[in-house]
Amino acid sequence: MVSEDIEQLITLLAKLPGLGPRSARRATLNLIKRKETLMQPLAKAMATAAEQIKTCSVCGNLDTHDPCKLCNDPRRDMTTICVVEDVADLWALERTVAFRGQYHVLGGTLTALDGVGPDDLRIPQLVLRASGGGVKEVILATNATVDGQTTAHYIADRLEEKGVVVSGLAHGVPVGGELDYLDDGTIRAAIKARGPL
Amino acid sequence: MVSEDIEQLITLLAKLPGLGPRSARRATLNLIKRKETLMQPLAKAMATAAEQIKTCSVCGNLDTHDPCKLCNDPRRDMTTICVVEDVADLWALERTVAFRGQYHVLGGTLTALDGVGPDDLRIPQLVLRASGGGVKEVILATNATVDGQTTAHYIADRLEEKGVVVSGLAHGVPVGGELDYLDDGTIRAAIKARGPL
Repeated sequence: MVSEDIEQLITLLAKLPGLGPRSARRATLNLIKRKETLMQPLAKAMATAAEQIKTCSVCGNLDTHDPCKLCNDPRRDMTTICVVEDVADLWALERTVAFRGQYHVLGGTLTALDGVGPDDLRIPQLVLRASGGGVKEVILATNATVDGQTTAHYIADRLEEKGVVVSGLAHGVPVGGELDYLDDGTIRAAIKARGPL
Repeated sequence: MVSEDIEQLITLLAKLPGLGPRSARRATLNLIKRKETLMQPLAKAMATAAEQIKTCSVCGNLDTHDPCKLCNDPRRDMTTICVVEDVADLWALERTVAFRGQYHVLGGTLTALDGVGPDDLRIPQLVLRASGGGVKEVILATNATVDGQTTAHYIADRLEEKGVVVSGLAHGVPVGGELDYLDDGTIRAAIKARGPL
């Protein structure tokens, strides 16, 4: 007979991805032990985020401002749009600091089986942004999965007559990767796209 | 450049046991997507728990009441105290519904290396409870680790002259366990303590 308040906290924490009932119990005990340093700040951070975070109406990023910081940053290149499936992918690209242009978050991939069509993603908005003038290149950075690549090809077709360059991420050996563990497709792509050392 | 509010939420979530930076990011995105159904209730549950949950002054359990529900339950056997290392162990025992007596949470084990002595745990309080009369049996349900068993033996010595029966959990083959995967000590204990089928 655990206290109802604790029980509810465990139930809610267990709904997070990566946490099952057992790890939710462990996390709950940990939270109670670190009440001042962790539980209260976390409760506050969640309440603030729930209230403040919104989806950017331009690119689909999550931020406290709309348009988001990235869309509003005058130091970023306005002529290039990088198309990603999800906000997590945008974060991954931002961590590399390798890209300083604009983003466009699709919110998923085209999936016939699940009935996800172009209008369920933010594809019409992307076509509109690309046709507005000013945009010179659209980089399709969807995942290298079947769904991701299908979506990329569909978007490339839609953008064909808009007069923008459409590019995709390079395929090859991951940095630090061992050939022995790589699949044939990746090695084939890496050989085909080989370059001078 | 992720929004500061999101960044803070990720940092705090990554401090939970079982969540690293990557899974904290995944959990954060999930929370933002399920704002009304998960993030807001979770924020509220945490704030409530941080405010309400306290340690029971009798047994060391966590509850909104002090003494806790278990200590206050008149249907529970007052003559038996089950000693556990941690609140997580108390929860594990309560889930089995196999024990209907009182508990005593030590808050850890004796560890000479970390400088944890009897007075750092709730051992003096246990000795006091056991000597108060009315208690007939103390079950030592510390973990079957070296530290857990050392602590159990120390407590058994302290309780020797108090006139209470001191018992420990049985060792043996876990229900559903395969002999092939068990360590020698467990199999030896199971053979030694064999009983009629």
